[in-house]
Amino acid sequence: MVRIAILGATGYTALELLKLLIRHPEAEIVALTSRENTQPVDLVHPSLTGEISLRLENSTPQEILERGVDCVFSCLPHTATAAVAPAFLDGGAKVIDFGADYRLDSAEVFQKWYGVEHPDAERLPRVPYGLPELFRAEILKSNIVANPGCYPTSAILPLAPILRAGYIEPTDIIIDSKSGVSGAGRKPSLKNLYPECNEAISAYGIGTHRHTPEIELIISKFAGQDAKILFTPHLTPMDRGILTTAYSRIKKPGLTQDDVLNLLRKQYENEPFVRIVEAPPTTKDVIHTNRCHITARVLGDRLVTISVIDNLIKGASGAAVQNFNLLFGYPEETALK
Amino acid sequence: MVRIAILGATGYTALELLKLLIRHPEAEIVALTSRENTQPVDLVHPSLTGEISLRLENSTPQEILERGVDCVFSCLPHTATAAVAPAFLDGGAKVIDFGADYRLDSAEVFQKWYGVEHPDAERLPRVPYGLPELFRAEILKSNIVANPGCYPTSAILPLAPILRAGYIEPTDIIIDSKSGVSGAGRKPSLKNLYPECNEAISAYGIGTHRHTPEIELIISKFAGQDAKILFTPHLTPMDRGILTTAYSRIKKPGLTQDDVLNLLRKQYENEPFVRIVEAPPTTKDVIHTNRCHITARVLGDRLVTISVIDNLIKGASGAAVQNFNLLFGYPEETALK
Amino acid sequence: MVRIAILGATGYTALELLKLLIRHPEAEIVALTSRENTQPVDLVHPSLTGEISLRLENSTPQEILERGVDCVFSCLPHTATAAVAPAFLDGGAKVIDFGADYRLDSAEVFQKWYGVEHPDAERLPRVPYGLPELFRAEILKSNIVANPGCYPTSAILPLAPILRAGYIEPTDIIIDSKSGVSGAGRKPSLKNLYPECNEAISAYGIGTHRHTPEIELIISKFAGQDAKILFTPHLTPMDRGILTTAYSRIKKPGLTQDDVLNLLRKQYENEPFVRIVEAPPTTKDVIHTNRCHITARVLGDRLVTISVIDNLIKGASGAAVQNFNLLFGYPEETALK
Amino acid sequence: MVRIAILGATGYTALELLKLLIRHPEAEIVALTSRENTQPVDLVHPSLTGEISLRLENSTPQEILERGVDCVFSCLPHTATAAVAPAFLDGGAKVIDFGADYRLDSAEVFQKWYGVEHPDAERLPRVPYGLPELFRAEILKSNIVANPGCYPTSAILPLAPILRAGYIEPTDIIIDSKSGVSGAGRKPSLKNLYPECNEAISAYGIGTHRHTPEIELIISKFAGQDAKILFTPHLTPMDRGILTTAYSRIKKPGLTQDDVLNLLRKQYENEPFVRIVEAPPTTKDVIHTNRCHITARVLGDRLVTISVIDNLIKGASGAAVQNFNLLFGYPEETALK
Repeated sequence: MVRIAILGATGYTALELLKLLIRHPEAEIVALTSRENTQPVDLVHPSLTGEISLRLENSTPQEILERGVDCVFSCLPHTATAAVAPAFLDGGAKVIDFGADYRLDSAEVFQKWYGVEHPDAERLPRVPYGLPELFRAEILKSNIVANPGCYPTSAILPLAPILRAGYIEPTDIIIDSKSGVSGAGRKPSLKNLYPECNEAISAYGIGTHRHTPEIELIISKFAGQDAKILFTPHLTPMDRGILTTAYSRIKKPGLTQDDVLNLLRKQYENEPFVRIVEAPPTTKDVIHTNRCHITARVLGDRLVTISVIDNLIKGASGAAVQNFNLLFGYPEETALK
Repeated sequence: MVRIAILGATGYTALELLKLLIRHPEAEIVALTSRENTQPVDLVHPSLTGEISLRLENSTPQEILERGVDCVFSCLPHTATAAVAPAFLDGGAKVIDFGADYRLDSAEVFQKWYGVEHPDAERLPRVPYGLPELFRAEILKSNIVANPGCYPTSAILPLAPILRAGYIEPTDIIIDSKSGVSGAGRKPSLKNLYPECNEAISAYGIGTHRHTPEIELIISKFAGQDAKILFTPHLTPMDRGILTTAYSRIKKPGLTQDDVLNLLRKQYENEPFVRIVEAPPTTKDVIHTNRCHITARVLGDRLVTISVIDNLIKGASGAAVQNFNLLFGYPEETALK
Repeated sequence: MVRIAILGATGYTALELLKLLIRHPEAEIVALTSRENTQPVDLVHPSLTGEISLRLENSTPQEILERGVDCVFSCLPHTATAAVAPAFLDGGAKVIDFGADYRLDSAEVFQKWYGVEHPDAERLPRVPYGLPELFRAEILKSNIVANPGCYPTSAILPLAPILRAGYIEPTDIIIDSKSGVSGAGRKPSLKNLYPECNEAISAYGIGTHRHTPEIELIISKFAGQDAKILFTPHLTPMDRGILTTAYSRIKKPGLTQDDVLNLLRKQYENEPFVRIVEAPPTTKDVIHTNRCHITARVLGDRLVTISVIDNLIKGASGAAVQNFNLLFGYPEETALK
Repeated sequence: MVRIAILGATGYTALELLKLLIRHPEAEIVALTSRENTQPVDLVHPSLTGEISLRLENSTPQEILERGVDCVFSCLPHTATAAVAPAFLDGGAKVIDFGADYRLDSAEVFQKWYGVEHPDAERLPRVPYGLPELFRAEILKSNIVANPGCYPTSAILPLAPILRAGYIEPTDIIIDSKSGVSGAGRKPSLKNLYPECNEAISAYGIGTHRHTPEIELIISKFAGQDAKILFTPHLTPMDRGILTTAYSRIKKPGLTQDDVLNLLRKQYENEPFVRIVEAPPTTKDVIHTNRCHITARVLGDRLVTISVIDNLIKGASGAAVQNFNLLFGYPEETALK
């Protein structure tokens, strides 16, 4: 059994993580933290009633380590994880960060997009990007993983192999994403109120969303050159799910839809969580699962890829459990099927 | 033209009121207040873009009266209206209160349910209950009106005539109501977040909701004795609309469904906003209107009545405009059809 | 491994059943039938893409039995199961019926409510009602089980023990239920269209819904006398979930809320899928699980119980898997946690 | 008073048209047709209860003309309007077509996209496109108008002036639209069922939707050359509303966001139904109104425009009433404010 702590356990991603870990045969949850809440966790998450009996606590890394914790999942806001990760790593625990602290590879880029200095800059370039389908080897060698953002997961899975194959221009990619409201977190604010979101769709962070540099960094590795995207997320009236429609310009003459679908099928044929489909997928095909469904269309000189995930599972907690399984030597699908 | 101020203009009922008054040919809105916000109102309510160009302001009654205001609609929280209403009335303005301050007829009952002393207790018994279909004569003689609560409107319209006719027992009435989330207001809180309310229905305030004494007080007048209800509201995943299913025990032997429907038809035949229907109504039949649709079923010794309204219109702002039209001598349907 | 056929596999309950059985370690699905559709099942249910590779087929019981089927789950409409169940039972398969064919104990009552003659009347009184929490002993001895209706499950679990304890009058019970739209099935009809159901709540089948005799029959066994209910279901704008608010009259003098909660806690203390809670539950606490959460309030001489389930799981497929586990000797929670 | 017939009055756009015409002081509705339904219209549209007392009828153009009809609104499927429009026009009535029959200017293009021969080909090039903001002069001179498609309205209003100003490349435009489910009509089908659409977003008709040639035709007129778009509509879980995110390549060096916003402001400064906004609009800002809100962002060499409308009003019935007002000499805002 791996002894686990979850930092920042009151939100929606933490809830999904708890549900997955409760059914994981090798996971033992021993600490749940919150800075503001010390209730039993099933009062904060009533859907866990009778499933777990821990209390939230506001404990220090040292206090948590003293309980023999082997793995720390951090759902803390940005910079908060990087402030405590060194202590946990030094104490012998492995760390899986849900936030952005270790996703970029440069403290300068981090500071530019997040407006604050990185608290653990020197480690930054050594932390693998926790998308197992594309970075499994690096993850297996690490004791800390940067769990990917939800939008990036939905965008990178289709685009990375297509860019590596040289099928499309890396500098002319438009990513139009539609996300359920749980992606905005569980902190009360006017914009997340039911009557504001319901019966409403809107764009936000147009060209300025912080997932932009993350996507560009990762797909550039596959393109072999600096990629450039225009990314527009939209808040959609549903609990969960992301649909990403990506428009790119075809570089390879004569490219067909079958070429693209076959490339993707080949790339992901042994991956348990990625499926290439013919009909346009809906988010409903994948919510409450760790899967990503992808399709593609060639239209003139444009390629359109469409991908769907559950933002809270494949886009957060499911990927984290994949990484957990890799870090601790369990079959990657454990607790995810 | 009647010069109008709206107190507490940032919420959902105020937005609906603004939409109605903007198309009212005799209404001129001259002041909109908020304690915290001094933005142009169309930034707070983007659906008013280009429709109105006032700024929110935190003004005193005196400052508002100096602008020649004839009518004050108050969307303030309880006790806040009663704290300023006397000043407005003394200054010659008429007052329509959306809150509960003047709905009950006793300061003791108010204090019991609201936990605070009533700031204007002596006026309480003289303020008419602003349900024009049942209290039109009293409203016409007053300069202040207590606009009814949303749940009470949906419950009283079907029950009052049936109680007056002696068809049912006044002390054995169960009222099970289902409301859209806008009824909970626009103040951010965990329970009103989209991911908490969406795909979820729940009961709240079971037997303890503050609309209980309001309904009992009003229907008692029609029953000719103290009525007693058991009231359970439910938060339903939709923006607006209330459906109230009321279960009562039949007192009159041989009562048929047609007896009840015909009584209701007769009661409301000249009312422009109440319709008696055969098929079970849905909230969708009436949202975005000032109408109430009602049906009834006799099942053994039980009568079931079902009524639907838009909580923000017939349950709040539409009724307020009806009252406004009565207070200022305009046809009651003005701006409401 | 138990070899399984699912009859009528295109609907929402069949989809949930498939998801549960796919992760059941002892279940092998060998046949899926449909009268109209012979596509691969993952084209009909895209959320099963890559999870199962069977085709739908329109086969006879004999053809299915020839494949060595041990267990038949029937999601067929009423009378269709009773028309084929004898053949399957004679062929040595066990049968779990999702429909109403074997829920009542009298062919006369069946004919009265369903308007057709029962095709297998003589078996009717011998088939156990498949609510394991209350009828486990009978289920264990049978080779056919009548899986309960969704509304009845939500109503019976709280009421049965309270009636057995003599706390309430069996003849004065009002059951007001609110269900998500998946309960209406997957057959296209105007009333189930998104724009008809969304932003709308409505009552239907007021006092005439076919679950009425089913609830009355079962709770009468616990009351020790004929129980009488008034049952009103409501169509609520959400995919899944049922919340049932039941109002009954207290018979036992001095009954307190704690008495009721403690009785329920005691009744269900060893049941893995029933939880007694203090705060009013929401359907969101239990959707996508096999659990039922229950609370209760005493208000004057009335008892209010509130219960929530997922209509597709605890109200259909989850209960069916519980029954499957009982019929074949597996731990009852298998595939359900 | 203008005497009006509505052909095909059972759907969602007809319902909105009825609501608008009922409050139009110069409109008298005298006939409502349906091929399958002869019920009173308020049974088909319960939200019209007590508002109108006509029956649906399956009448011929001649029968309708004999009642002195001055204006025919046709909500019939494609080719059905063109089959009857000549009779109505010859009989002296004016025609407003909600469908696609007269939107394109070539019978060949019509046949290519709709797969059938055009029944009234010769009239095609003479029928004005009913977007009053851009084609008012032509509409005023005509007795028949082709009411625009919902997606085209949302796309053309922002793009037409920007193309005319030469700011962007006419051949590199990506239009990603998100529509509520009412756009799919009121005919029952699996894909429009509540449990299929709710909690789900999906793309459809990717690059093949029939609104593609309509948008290209109209914006080409403003570009002064053949425009080329890639259009992807998405089905979004909400009743109504369209948000269109359009991505185009900037041609004019040094173009700023203010340049674009000011151009749009100037273009639409006298238009009552188009508003240029700074903050990203949501569909909720405009549903239940005839308005279009537009914003724009310059990001590198890309222009992003975002526009929102109510698909049933500005995208259908509201535009039709604008056209009606123009055809019959009433102020264009009549019944629309």
